[in-house]
Amino acid sequence: MKWVAAKVMYDGTNFFGYQSQPAFRTVQDEFEKSLKIIFKKETPSYACGRTDTGVHATGQVVSFKVENENMTEKNIKDALNAILPEDIYVKEVKEVKEGFNPRAEAKKRIYHYFIYINEDPNIFLRNRVWWVPLTLNLEKMRQAAKYFEGEHDFTSFKTGNDERNPIRTIYRVRIIQLRKDLILIRVEGKSFLKRMVRNIVGALVKVGTDVWEVEKIEEILEAKKRASAPASAPPQGLYFYSALF
Amino acid sequence: MKWVAAKVMYDGTNFFGYQSQPAFRTVQDEFEKSLKIIFKKETPSYACGRTDTGVHATGQVVSFKVENENMTEKNIKDALNAILPEDIYVKEVKEVKEGFNPRAEAKKRIYHYFIYINEDPNIFLRNRVWWVPLTLNLEKMRQAAKYFEGEHDFTSFKTGNDERNPIRTIYRVRIIQLRKDLILIRVEGKSFLKRMVRNIVGALVKVGTDVWEVEKIEEILEAKKRASAPASAPPQGLYFYSALF
Repeated sequence: MKWVAAKVMYDGTNFFGYQSQPAFRTVQDEFEKSLKIIFKKETPSYACGRTDTGVHATGQVVSFKVENENMTEKNIKDALNAILPEDIYVKEVKEVKEGFNPRAEAKKRIYHYFIYINEDPNIFLRNRVWWVPLTLNLEKMRQAAKYFEGEHDFTSFKTGNDERNPIRTIYRVRIIQLRKDLILIRVEGKSFLKRMVRNIVGALVKVGTDVWEVEKIEEILEAKKRASAPASAPPQGLYFYSALF
Repeated sequence: MKWVAAKVMYDGTNFFGYQSQPAFRTVQDEFEKSLKIIFKKETPSYACGRTDTGVHATGQVVSFKVENENMTEKNIKDALNAILPEDIYVKEVKEVKEGFNPRAEAKKRIYHYFIYINEDPNIFLRNRVWWVPLTLNLEKMRQAAKYFEGEHDFTSFKTGNDERNPIRTIYRVRIIQLRKDLILIRVEGKSFLKRMVRNIVGALVKVGTDVWEVEKIEEILEAKKRASAPASAPPQGLYFYSALF
């Protein structure tokens, strides 16, 4: 018997999020269905982050127990990729300590959010980015992003039904211009509340389009009320990029 | 009354090709359905190239007649984009001469073909590129590409049911390394036979993987038999990039 962790990539477009749900197609259900076929028994799995409907992953981490000692990490990877649907792919399988739970063990999570800035949409990116047909002031967005860094009460930036401790630490928020028409917002933190990254991105875009001044971010954080913050950025621009342990 | 030409982008994944067909979803049918809604009458349209199932376009050109003189080019573009499904988008509408037929008038057509070279697939590119998990020798491919340039009998590089004149002129074939794991094959010609670009790409990959020597291309061209050429490259890597008039 051994425990392994898989590094998993998925296209969130056709999933009702990561977490198992009756009657809806979810990543966890597809993953555990494949584990059951390979190991011929129910095999519970433990993920690092529960992404929402439409949110993607390039580096989700999922652990599970393997009874069969003869299966190598490469065997497990190949078996999973042979069975998983075309919108999930296992990039790597690695042995981990017994009972390893990525959610509890992660020291850092990195999310990537892509914004496509153009008067016309690009249909090839329609489920991959947030299309914003406006000019964004990246310098102002970078100043605003500084307010999120450090330890804060993120009550204003979570979704109502997340009742966990709202105090979270963000290590860094970077805004990177990849091309003239494509920007990446990279958010690094220990852990995040529900919709927190999308709510942060929604606020940054309000600043970038000059609807808000930079200081408004501080005001909203201090208000500690969800209603004071703007609408979430849409899910299709968000990627669970990686986790560090 | 005036004639206009639209520059059209589409994601070919969920279409049975460009050309109208009963009982299948095609780009032409969706486009003409939208024209009928806007102009309240059947409006025939004329496209530059009939792309196959799964093939994309970033610059297809489609012309049609507009009875209503009051509609500007911008009005027509906006009306079409409001009605067209999410996998078709009109980038531009421009007035053209009466009866303009893009197919007959095109002096040059440019196709782009993308190959993703990596041991692992990238699920976000699954309907956008040809995934080749092998090393490609681009220098050899560039030498092989030279044989296609100029006027040739392309019988070996067409699909059996295309009975048109097999003599075609290719102006240029370029092989461009965009990233370590992504290459673009750009093919410019006056006009192409059915599947011709995909058959050329299939042959170039045979050379790139060292299955064939460079000179084999000349041999196949001279054979003038489809059976002597390799299988077509898959449709999802191909884009009708643009046409010049």
